[in-house]
Amino acid sequence: MDSIARQSAKLCPFVSRATSSLRNVQTLQQGNISVMAQRCPFMGQAMQKAHLKTSATTNAAAAAPAAQEASRAAGEDQNSVMVDRATQEAKFDYEGLFEQDLQKKRLDKSYRFFNNINRLAKEFPMAHRQQEEDKVTVWCSNDYLALSKNQQVVDVMKRTLDKYGAGAGGTRNIAGHNQHALRLEAEVAALHKKEGALVFSSCFVANDAVISLLGQKLKDLVIFSDELNHASMIVGIKHASTTKHIFKHNDLEHLEELLAMYPKSTPKLIAFESVYSMSGSVADISKICDLAEKYGALTFLDEVHAVGLYGPHGAGVAEHCDFESHRSSGIASPAHETVMDRVDMITGTLGKSFGTVGGYVAGSLRLIDWLRSYAPGFIFTTSLPPSVMAGAAEAIRYQRSHLDLRQAQQRHTAYVKQGLADLDIPVIPNPSHIVPVLVGNPDLARQASEILMDKHRIYVQAINFPTVARGTERLRITPTPGHTDDLSDILLDAVDDVFNTLQLPRVKDWERQGGLLGVGQSDYMAEPNLWTEDQLQLSNNDLHPNVREPIIDQLEVSSGIRY
Amino acid sequence: MDSIARQSAKLCPFVSRATSSLRNVQTLQQGNISVMAQRCPFMGQAMQKAHLKTSATTNAAAAAPAAQEASRAAGEDQNSVMVDRATQEAKFDYEGLFEQDLQKKRLDKSYRFFNNINRLAKEFPMAHRQQEEDKVTVWCSNDYLALSKNQQVVDVMKRTLDKYGAGAGGTRNIAGHNQHALRLEAEVAALHKKEGALVFSSCFVANDAVISLLGQKLKDLVIFSDELNHASMIVGIKHASTTKHIFKHNDLEHLEELLAMYPKSTPKLIAFESVYSMSGSVADISKICDLAEKYGALTFLDEVHAVGLYGPHGAGVAEHCDFESHRSSGIASPAHETVMDRVDMITGTLGKSFGTVGGYVAGSLRLIDWLRSYAPGFIFTTSLPPSVMAGAAEAIRYQRSHLDLRQAQQRHTAYVKQGLADLDIPVIPNPSHIVPVLVGNPDLARQASEILMDKHRIYVQAINFPTVARGTERLRITPTPGHTDDLSDILLDAVDDVFNTLQLPRVKDWERQGGLLGVGQSDYMAEPNLWTEDQLQLSNNDLHPNVREPIIDQLEVSSGIRY
Repeated sequence: MDSIARQSAKLCPFVSRATSSLRNVQTLQQGNISVMAQRCPFMGQAMQKAHLKTSATTNAAAAAPAAQEASRAAGEDQNSVMVDRATQEAKFDYEGLFEQDLQKKRLDKSYRFFNNINRLAKEFPMAHRQQEEDKVTVWCSNDYLALSKNQQVVDVMKRTLDKYGAGAGGTRNIAGHNQHALRLEAEVAALHKKEGALVFSSCFVANDAVISLLGQKLKDLVIFSDELNHASMIVGIKHASTTKHIFKHNDLEHLEELLAMYPKSTPKLIAFESVYSMSGSVADISKICDLAEKYGALTFLDEVHAVGLYGPHGAGVAEHCDFESHRSSGIASPAHETVMDRVDMITGTLGKSFGTVGGYVAGSLRLIDWLRSYAPGFIFTTSLPPSVMAGAAEAIRYQRSHLDLRQAQQRHTAYVKQGLADLDIPVIPNPSHIVPVLVGNPDLARQASEILMDKHRIYVQAINFPTVARGTERLRITPTPGHTDDLSDILLDAVDDVFNTLQLPRVKDWERQGGLLGVGQSDYMAEPNLWTEDQLQLSNNDLHPNVREPIIDQLEVSSGIRY
Repeated sequence: MDSIARQSAKLCPFVSRATSSLRNVQTLQQGNISVMAQRCPFMGQAMQKAHLKTSATTNAAAAAPAAQEASRAAGEDQNSVMVDRATQEAKFDYEGLFEQDLQKKRLDKSYRFFNNINRLAKEFPMAHRQQEEDKVTVWCSNDYLALSKNQQVVDVMKRTLDKYGAGAGGTRNIAGHNQHALRLEAEVAALHKKEGALVFSSCFVANDAVISLLGQKLKDLVIFSDELNHASMIVGIKHASTTKHIFKHNDLEHLEELLAMYPKSTPKLIAFESVYSMSGSVADISKICDLAEKYGALTFLDEVHAVGLYGPHGAGVAEHCDFESHRSSGIASPAHETVMDRVDMITGTLGKSFGTVGGYVAGSLRLIDWLRSYAPGFIFTTSLPPSVMAGAAEAIRYQRSHLDLRQAQQRHTAYVKQGLADLDIPVIPNPSHIVPVLVGNPDLARQASEILMDKHRIYVQAINFPTVARGTERLRITPTPGHTDDLSDILLDAVDDVFNTLQLPRVKDWERQGGLLGVGQSDYMAEPNLWTEDQLQLSNNDLHPNVREPIIDQLEVSSGIRY
């Protein structure tokens, strides 16, 4: 097709006289010069002739009888016209469409260039770029607790590789179910104090699979979704093919208005996150559970950016809501009357704080068995490798008994946030561990990221649309226990330099414009940090001794479900 | 709700007199005694009273003002009735529904019990069950080439773990893009002789993401899908939300009839597999490409069960179609005029023949860049761990230069198929490496699997609905290079014993019934095996020397796309 278009273009009195750069611009912007050409009375005819000639040489023998046969099969005379159209027109210009869509991204600055970042386990938080000697400090990874470089995790994985090999070799139903899956799911269930858990390829898959299945199987389900929910939940809701309502971010009055529209007996699902990863805002889980009970809704809580970081054992914000109760009773005790117990299903990832890859959902035995039995995204896919599952289970166990990791992460976050505030650099205010530095322009955000990388050897990814709304572009900084104060000081100087170089708006500039997302807004009510000073003073020894033991023998879950 | 139902049940003159086992049966079968009770004029009233009493004690303070507020917000008087319904009715019985659905599976024998199978790298193809000393021979894994236990693959993974840690720590856009991803995608692109490749969490995700995005972005796309396509493609087609036509399995006349219904300019996608995993049937890729060209369709080919096993370099059946041409020119040469070149996109898995986990698509640079830029299932998920990507790249490279692995797999398959034929045991005929032993009943298939496991210490999973159609249940045997003739002899004796014990139909019995799926059908035309005798005689030295080198420096792909 392209060659036909090119040949035919020579016949066009306009195109043939245009400069080559104009032709290129046109091709890029329209994406689809062939399609345009077909509409042209002059070119269209020329292309049709050229196409027939091509068909005649390559398909002469095969095409004609096949077309007749299709015509015969259809059994109708007028179909011969259809068959002509089916074989003799120009085909759709697929590559042109791809190029057109890509060009849109280039023009609106949302086209992405990936950074080649090789995080070095033994030099955390350093990474090398394409060349091994070209090293940078990574300040935007979601390896929040640095567990991907934890020696115990790595050692367990290496031992598992030696003993059980590189891959699971099958789906959970066909040769891919093993003790590593059982143990990991027992650890996850215990962490969230739920009866059962199910591991997926990723939490994207878990969110999509769980929400879409609920929508497809619960007739008349109505889904209530926070407007800032992650793409995986949005995709799941779309696939649920049922009624949905989007409530304003963390706005419980709006949520209640929407819930109250339906009889209590109507099945409902409230889908929300604990920590919203790009703003750091935090849901009031307890009040959402109140509403869920009042209106008879299931609660679906994504703790992807909270596990490892909140709660005495790193089970997330839901656990953090009853910190003392969970801390004193340890991991194997029931969760009655706690916020975590009231949430129907919790999803989480093994790829961020838990340092490996994969996702999961935890909930009641029946729910888990139902998902296991019906969710195509779980059933028809190869299990995670034994070494990954063993490593993730070890990471969960390790972090559970290491309150100090969570505390160090919190202290480093506070240090960076305070340092940025002292420099009048705008950070979207939030009570969590996320440090979103507001830039507000996609091109400047990208440039800021590039200067940090090229001049300061610091990697902070610019976060642009579609990950955040246009006009709210930001640099998202994520401190870890490895980001000590001396590294923070270097970061702060670098960010200050970038703000000077690009003349990015400081807090006082946002104030003048009336503020954005809580930055420069005098009436903004700052929420207290989730971690209290008292909680930050505790030591690992203040945890219950049972958090240091593998969970497999402590739990009913392994015997509860016989699969 | 459950406790109310239980209390109220005491008031029921029928239920209170029923035996407990009857009550249990009723609960299980109806799934939803609470819902039934609400419909009962006697029980319904009793439950309503009990519910109001419960609400009064727990929600008295909160519920009333909140309901009033919601009512005010809605701003209409009649909404007070709605709010009453919204809060005071019985809520939907979610657990009851889950139980009801599970019970359906128990009753139709499609409820699955997973086998705890721990495949031992150093004793391949042995695995241990729950206890380490309880060993069995695995005959149903999809680790077709035993590469999950390959020492080079395992060593690369261990070295990568030591150097780069356990997890990628982010999405490809945020800290999760690295040299391992670049190298793996270069290896995949080179394997299939395409301009680019993109790696996903799994091939389930790849199939779903690619097909659904095409449907969502190509206005008026029409999808033509083989009726035996894998669940991941069916899910992708569903999510594509566009017109679809299912063509009869491998029936090109039917496919052409459907294609001929549309003008050539209408965008079309033909989605099919090379080797259909549960039957072993094989598509005529070349003829499908003819039709695609004639009618202007894109071709989407899933080679999940073929990569590693067909073609001189293990690129799949598309490569096998031009065996000599690819063999003599090696891996870095162009693929012009070959069947593989004519296919627009090829998806494959890293979790079967390539021994690890993950999936991919290979295609034109524009297509790959477009998927990279728009597919949520690629964008918003954590990258595979560096060690997994490095291991997968090593596995691809290793198998590429080891024709002997493919040949051994073929020879062992032929031995098992011949042995079963000699015993008159029904194998669904096919030209590939799959050995589907027909049972035709879900309960008997499960029992056969259990006897093999418990009596013979052989693990062959029974394949029941929904993986295969009801009435075609089977035992699916997958030989590997490690399944030597002495192990096959043990398997053959065991299968014979199971067929005797359960009196399962042999070929002659199927003949009497008129046959099924080619078994016992005298008019069935057997296809020749994909591997010819000549191809089976070649040695690794007959391959081009360039297949032994890493591909990263040989390819344009790494510089072609700047991301």
